[in-house]
Amino acid sequence: MSHIAKKQKMDIAEKCVNTVRIIGAEVVQKAKSGHPGAPMGCAPIAHALFGHEMTFAASTPSWPNRDRFILSNGHSCALLYTMLHLTGYERPSMDDLKNFRQLNSVTAGHPENHLLDAVEVSTGPLGQGISNAVGMAIGEANLRARYNKENFSLIDHNIFVLCGDGCLQEGVSAEASSLAGHLKLGKIIVLYDDNNIQIDGSTDLAFTEDVGKRYEAYGWQVLSYDDGDNADVSGLRALIQQAKATTDKPTIIKVKTTIGKYATKQGTHGVHGAPIGDDDIARIKTELGFDAEAKFAIGNDVYKFYKDASAAGEQAYQKWQEMWKNYSTSFPNEAGELERRWSGDLPDDLLKSLPRYKVGDKTKASRVYSQDVIKSFADLMPEWIGGSADLTPSTKTNWPGCVDFQHATPHGRYIRFGVREHGMAAVVNGLAAYGGFIPFGSTFLTFVGYALGGIRLSALSHFRVIYVMTHDSIGLGEDGPTHQPIEILASLRAMPNMLVMRPCDGNETSGAYFAALSQKGRPTTLSLSRQGLPILNGSSVEGVLKGAYVLQDCTGGAPQVTFVATGSEVGLCIEAAKLLEGVRVRVVSMPCWELFDEQDESYQQSVIGTGCPVISVEAGSTTGWTKYSHYQIGMTTFGESAPGNKVFEKFGFSPENVASEGKKVMNHFTQNPVPKLMVKF
Amino acid sequence: MSHIAKKQKMDIAEKCVNTVRIIGAEVVQKAKSGHPGAPMGCAPIAHALFGHEMTFAASTPSWPNRDRFILSNGHSCALLYTMLHLTGYERPSMDDLKNFRQLNSVTAGHPENHLLDAVEVSTGPLGQGISNAVGMAIGEANLRARYNKENFSLIDHNIFVLCGDGCLQEGVSAEASSLAGHLKLGKIIVLYDDNNIQIDGSTDLAFTEDVGKRYEAYGWQVLSYDDGDNADVSGLRALIQQAKATTDKPTIIKVKTTIGKYATKQGTHGVHGAPIGDDDIARIKTELGFDAEAKFAIGNDVYKFYKDASAAGEQAYQKWQEMWKNYSTSFPNEAGELERRWSGDLPDDLLKSLPRYKVGDKTKASRVYSQDVIKSFADLMPEWIGGSADLTPSTKTNWPGCVDFQHATPHGRYIRFGVREHGMAAVVNGLAAYGGFIPFGSTFLTFVGYALGGIRLSALSHFRVIYVMTHDSIGLGEDGPTHQPIEILASLRAMPNMLVMRPCDGNETSGAYFAALSQKGRPTTLSLSRQGLPILNGSSVEGVLKGAYVLQDCTGGAPQVTFVATGSEVGLCIEAAKLLEGVRVRVVSMPCWELFDEQDESYQQSVIGTGCPVISVEAGSTTGWTKYSHYQIGMTTFGESAPGNKVFEKFGFSPENVASEGKKVMNHFTQNPVPKLMVKF
Repeated sequence: MSHIAKKQKMDIAEKCVNTVRIIGAEVVQKAKSGHPGAPMGCAPIAHALFGHEMTFAASTPSWPNRDRFILSNGHSCALLYTMLHLTGYERPSMDDLKNFRQLNSVTAGHPENHLLDAVEVSTGPLGQGISNAVGMAIGEANLRARYNKENFSLIDHNIFVLCGDGCLQEGVSAEASSLAGHLKLGKIIVLYDDNNIQIDGSTDLAFTEDVGKRYEAYGWQVLSYDDGDNADVSGLRALIQQAKATTDKPTIIKVKTTIGKYATKQGTHGVHGAPIGDDDIARIKTELGFDAEAKFAIGNDVYKFYKDASAAGEQAYQKWQEMWKNYSTSFPNEAGELERRWSGDLPDDLLKSLPRYKVGDKTKASRVYSQDVIKSFADLMPEWIGGSADLTPSTKTNWPGCVDFQHATPHGRYIRFGVREHGMAAVVNGLAAYGGFIPFGSTFLTFVGYALGGIRLSALSHFRVIYVMTHDSIGLGEDGPTHQPIEILASLRAMPNMLVMRPCDGNETSGAYFAALSQKGRPTTLSLSRQGLPILNGSSVEGVLKGAYVLQDCTGGAPQVTFVATGSEVGLCIEAAKLLEGVRVRVVSMPCWELFDEQDESYQQSVIGTGCPVISVEAGSTTGWTKYSHYQIGMTTFGESAPGNKVFEKFGFSPENVASEGKKVMNHFTQNPVPKLMVKF
Repeated sequence: MSHIAKKQKMDIAEKCVNTVRIIGAEVVQKAKSGHPGAPMGCAPIAHALFGHEMTFAASTPSWPNRDRFILSNGHSCALLYTMLHLTGYERPSMDDLKNFRQLNSVTAGHPENHLLDAVEVSTGPLGQGISNAVGMAIGEANLRARYNKENFSLIDHNIFVLCGDGCLQEGVSAEASSLAGHLKLGKIIVLYDDNNIQIDGSTDLAFTEDVGKRYEAYGWQVLSYDDGDNADVSGLRALIQQAKATTDKPTIIKVKTTIGKYATKQGTHGVHGAPIGDDDIARIKTELGFDAEAKFAIGNDVYKFYKDASAAGEQAYQKWQEMWKNYSTSFPNEAGELERRWSGDLPDDLLKSLPRYKVGDKTKASRVYSQDVIKSFADLMPEWIGGSADLTPSTKTNWPGCVDFQHATPHGRYIRFGVREHGMAAVVNGLAAYGGFIPFGSTFLTFVGYALGGIRLSALSHFRVIYVMTHDSIGLGEDGPTHQPIEILASLRAMPNMLVMRPCDGNETSGAYFAALSQKGRPTTLSLSRQGLPILNGSSVEGVLKGAYVLQDCTGGAPQVTFVATGSEVGLCIEAAKLLEGVRVRVVSMPCWELFDEQDESYQQSVIGTGCPVISVEAGSTTGWTKYSHYQIGMTTFGESAPGNKVFEKFGFSPENVASEGKKVMNHFTQNPVPKLMVKF
């Protein structure tokens, strides 16, 4: 390269990088809200990735073989939006950039995957993005192992992550990073914005560990780059290329940058989370040779640079399309399966493949019915992938013939997450975001508390993820209150866009899985018992899909009392009903509040609105049950360590007590009107 | 030592260690439930600690200067119970050992601190115990720095932890361990039961990182001991002594052991979580020279060994008592303060020191009123200790003159947790368990989801911990749905033994703190706004203590409609009431459900049972509000990124909409009876 050519190249690089810095600051400034520090500090990294090293097709954000980019430090989203705009994505437009953080804008305060196609995952809560990358890398390796053929390298790409100090302080990233090192997920390339600043001030206040050494301990390749403020990114690119060439280890590149580079408060936490001010922006523009008056100004040469840079990705996409056409001819079965997986559709014969049971069949715990169901569809659905947080023998989530996903067996679909619940949630989110998978994670229901930060993002991000949570009440017995969930069902039911299913027997477990698998845009938590639950007369797969239904009705007139119960307590109510001789008792099974809420009013009233008192029975917190019942039998304290049946009895979950409570409530309502439930106004 | 003396010593050591192994297995066997593997494998470690290296007074489990012992792998509790019995604690008795995991027994399936005095913290959920130790070590260092005087080494002891692979896979321990390294908490000594087995099988399935190197990266001293099955623990003791001598770094000792040592299935996960069987126990007894027929047999020489070993601790305790007496004479103020702190009592003049506000005072966010309150009592209450998970400028939890707790400033009380919410929860639990502290942790309310596993243990363990959670609704605005809590209040309200307080202005914020500080046996979550909340006419410190109260009533007759609201929505309801001209409107502020539930029925009915329709207004999930209202204005979806007032308006939280909803509901109830709320049966 001649000296002049090199100089020109440098000029455009500087102009690009500084444009990104300025637009990043301006986006935040116009919104009067946001985080300018990271966009200004990380512009060179973004330039190296979006301008050089990443392969993507802005025309087709959904291209399956694109490199993934995850902004783990989601508060820096002004940077991401700027890069997406510059590289030619339809959205965000310039107007979108100017509407940052405004009502109904796609350029939300943190990146949201359901608002912008090019946003892979919703980030903001720290540590999630880098952990999602582990799920994506598992997805990449699995599809690559299963579908690539000689001369058909359908799937072969990297997963890039930009993260900051905060992401690396979070336990969720520690869990996922350890797993990634164990699995030798070489496609992960993390750019660590090592700027020594966090919100409270210097990282010296709280974070003085040797991050590089820690990642080496996880089995990662650790690289360092001290010149992260430089617009000449050739040195950084060389390290990224080294990372790409390393396929048996994930790579983290520590990039020393200056937060809020060029701002008056650069290098301090003062530039992290608030606009830097119009004056400072004008000063910076002048200093860097830009027109201080022109706002949101992007030079044509800058647009051209990124357009040219994107062109390589578009070409790669065109080539890939050719390959896909030929692949479809040569391997029609594989191609068809992949197309179905990418569409998110279920196999046609799924519903009829699910197990059905009849009264008298062997009594099993619903965690075991769950294993029956998994067994029934696992071969039919190669998109089913996941595992347990080191509780496989207890949660029973493996199936005959399942193969571990390990470095040596990337075609395997059973993930050994280790005792890493939060990392597990983030990994299954990454798999869901990756596309072509229905991922699941499993542990005891109570340990939802370890993973809620990730589970919440499943719901917010509209991911079809299935949480197979067992040991779902005090009925688990001896392990005691640390292991007995009380409040967890209420927590998950209060979460928007989350289905919670608590099946009462084998048929309802089949129904719960069918409902869960059918949700394209939301996650489901399955709440399953440790203890045995007999098959009940009247239980139904189809009933589950309505959320609640009359499982056992009375004869000879309208019911005098209705028990509404879930899971293990439905059978208990059947037993209680037997004790209420001469009383017309209805038993409603309500495996899913959310689906019941979505039924029409007449159906809802036909189930619980017949004019008699309704009593809810659930071995969990009573919170929320006042919506569906006039009286609640449930938990208001933590449980106790003892055999499950003794604990049940102690806390009132015996047929005798439920029957006696039923009588008490009936008596009350002989004197008092029965209020209508679920009143619509 | 002569050869014979050494031989005798070896004999008793072997007998002790093997007795512990056998009793551990028998305790589990009798319960037909539990985890024999770790007790059998870790008996030598326990012997080294309880028989040699730890200083404690079995007569006085509450001795403030005792060494702390935390069984982080709580499922191994048969080991802990056995050691406590052998070393002479009043409980567990032999009967307690035989009642392991039975109803009403103190020997629960996982150790519970509120059942047995000698159990420092409730463990079982993995990773918590080792993280609690960090809080304890902070407590030790802080008291040591503040109260020790020349010749009065009142506080100076170690914190021992036994943990397994599972604890070290959890992110919570990663967060806390990194913090411990940063803070150079040299009193922590972790014995890592490095047995290569977890529930799914070999740790090779999921956990192949270099744990030692990782802990070195955190700044810990890492030691290794390969002979962990040996009853001669002299080598291990030498390492523990080295750890004790290292005061500027926490130490982790990797101890290679065989899980379920001597069981037929030793060294496999088959011995982890189920009894090994009577036959195998009998075989082991015979092999080790014990009487195969005698169950729960403990030789007098074994009892004597541990009694003698404990005697040193009792002597140390007696000496300490002497010192304390002299200290009380020489430093009566300090001694009085410490006594008050250890008793858990509050300073007498706390209530009157809290800020009170009147209408027209400057409008502040409740996070700022919170800072006013902290400012008012921080000097009065040296037991107040804590900080924020790297959000100090936002959560406003620091106070004028507060000093960071750092290695160089151990007397400081402001903890820079870093972006480590789960670790923070575990650390404040450790501080609460340590005694003499009222610890607090702070982050945005939505990030409760990152820490719920630890927060749940605050409640279960009866810890007076205060979670100062700000940015408590969609009202936070631009940061968007990743940062806007919806379901979190419902989650925490469903949790037993947790107070949730959402004050509406400055007076209620004072009241909320007073309520929280007054709870000796339960934690509180304070839900505080980002946005400004004016002081309301009628708001009251004392009202808060009743959970709910009439903040503004109507005149000229009974109310026609009642709004019940919390936090930022109380003021909104006042505005809505103004719009409802000619309507008799009552506005109830309900900062705390739990305290309101504890009032007598007549008070409850006097607030919300006047016969008119009640409408709840809260910018969070409606889950649970059916208990207190006939109609709910709340959130059923995630929020949106935009300025807070725009988001509020979009989701119906405007005076106009609340007033219009109020009319709709009133109209409905002109035709329909108004059901009684909170019916008692």
